[in-house]
Amino acid sequence: MPVLLYDLVGKDPLRPFSPHCWKTKMMFAHLGLEFEAVPTRFTEVAQIEGGKCTSLPTIRDVDICIQDSFEIVKHYALGKPLLGGPDGEALVRFTESWSQSQLHSWIGKWAMLDICNMLNEEDQLFFRTKREKMFGQTLENLVASREDSLNELINRLLPLKLLLRRHDFLGGEVPDFADYIVFGAFQWLRITSSLKMIPHDHAVIDWFKRCLDLHDGLGHNVSEGELTI
Amino acid sequence: MPVLLYDLVGKDPLRPFSPHCWKTKMMFAHLGLEFEAVPTRFTEVAQIEGGKCTSLPTIRDVDICIQDSFEIVKHYALGKPLLGGPDGEALVRFTESWSQSQLHSWIGKWAMLDICNMLNEEDQLFFRTKREKMFGQTLENLVASREDSLNELINRLLPLKLLLRRHDFLGGEVPDFADYIVFGAFQWLRITSSLKMIPHDHAVIDWFKRCLDLHDGLGHNVSEGELTI
Repeated sequence: MPVLLYDLVGKDPLRPFSPHCWKTKMMFAHLGLEFEAVPTRFTEVAQIEGGKCTSLPTIRDVDICIQDSFEIVKHYALGKPLLGGPDGEALVRFTESWSQSQLHSWIGKWAMLDICNMLNEEDQLFFRTKREKMFGQTLENLVASREDSLNELINRLLPLKLLLRRHDFLGGEVPDFADYIVFGAFQWLRITSSLKMIPHDHAVIDWFKRCLDLHDGLGHNVSEGELTI
Repeated sequence: MPVLLYDLVGKDPLRPFSPHCWKTKMMFAHLGLEFEAVPTRFTEVAQIEGGKCTSLPTIRDVDICIQDSFEIVKHYALGKPLLGGPDGEALVRFTESWSQSQLHSWIGKWAMLDICNMLNEEDQLFFRTKREKMFGQTLENLVASREDSLNELINRLLPLKLLLRRHDFLGGEVPDFADYIVFGAFQWLRITSSLKMIPHDHAVIDWFKRCLDLHDGLGHNVSEGELTI
């Protein structure tokens, strides 16, 4: 029986976009573990698995239910090369901390309105209310001058750009979960807002394409979004 | 015979300050390898080892001469836990890329005048001429409004701060070379300009103190510099 993975979607169940779900799916494909994605909308999250879950991804594997992408990967790959080997888990976590504090914080502003527009009416209300309270402004205001932040993104990408001069992947010659963590962030941006704001000859774009091609092109299953500004 | 390590100093040979030399010394201490530091001034670098070297650290180990801290650690610890184990070298490199692009770039502005003031007259002329050409302004101008960049530093420290919520070191429960890389950056700042610009209760300060205490307190051998502004 395949693992069930509750996967965040908007009104189109064929366009899952959550960075944390994407990294988890790439990890399952890497390990050759069969999984079945269960399209789940924002307002449905609280009801899955009898109401015990508060976030996605959540997985159900026979009698085991796990929430949080890092907890899931630890369950399946603790000490394996995928998780940096026996000595590398904290370094994989550092990549996660970098991705969340430097990339998610940027994407989480740039893409907010694009994400909202992908949702159905009920989810839009839920999403917009929560985010506008968090940012203290309308989503339209938040993204109005988003192009001013492009230099900041390019600067934040520097650590990855420098690494890619020496290695094809964060895992070295082959990808590991650190790659999937950062892939998740870019796949989130690609699906919701496109990657057209990043110069096409940037080393990060080459690396991202290598990741898209992995595992029979799993990441290609959802097409790139549109640049709306 | 101990390994010779050419170690960058200013007018006081007892205050070596180079981040790259410090990470190398911490690595030697971690491995229990005896080394002898050879105090070397900026204008002396070009003459060591018969003029073949262009940067520090450089080490001489019987008939082997190696330049560059990462090449040195690879020679002594390839595949070992110190270097992230067999699968973690690229992730250690990512930490280096992060440290150099996000921390060194900041410290390399903040501390420029303080470093210059630590040098003897001949080195000051050499150092100042090169840096002022690079920055297109006097060192005094460069640091005049350096306090405006403090928020930027705090933001750049976020990935490490988040990691430290889960682990004592980048290496996990024990330090690895990723810790020594980042330690080198902070030790450089501590010796040249102090660490007083960072809130004393910041998680990074706690981690740095843990690193200072390692290997019989090797990092304590040089006292903290003064905050000059």
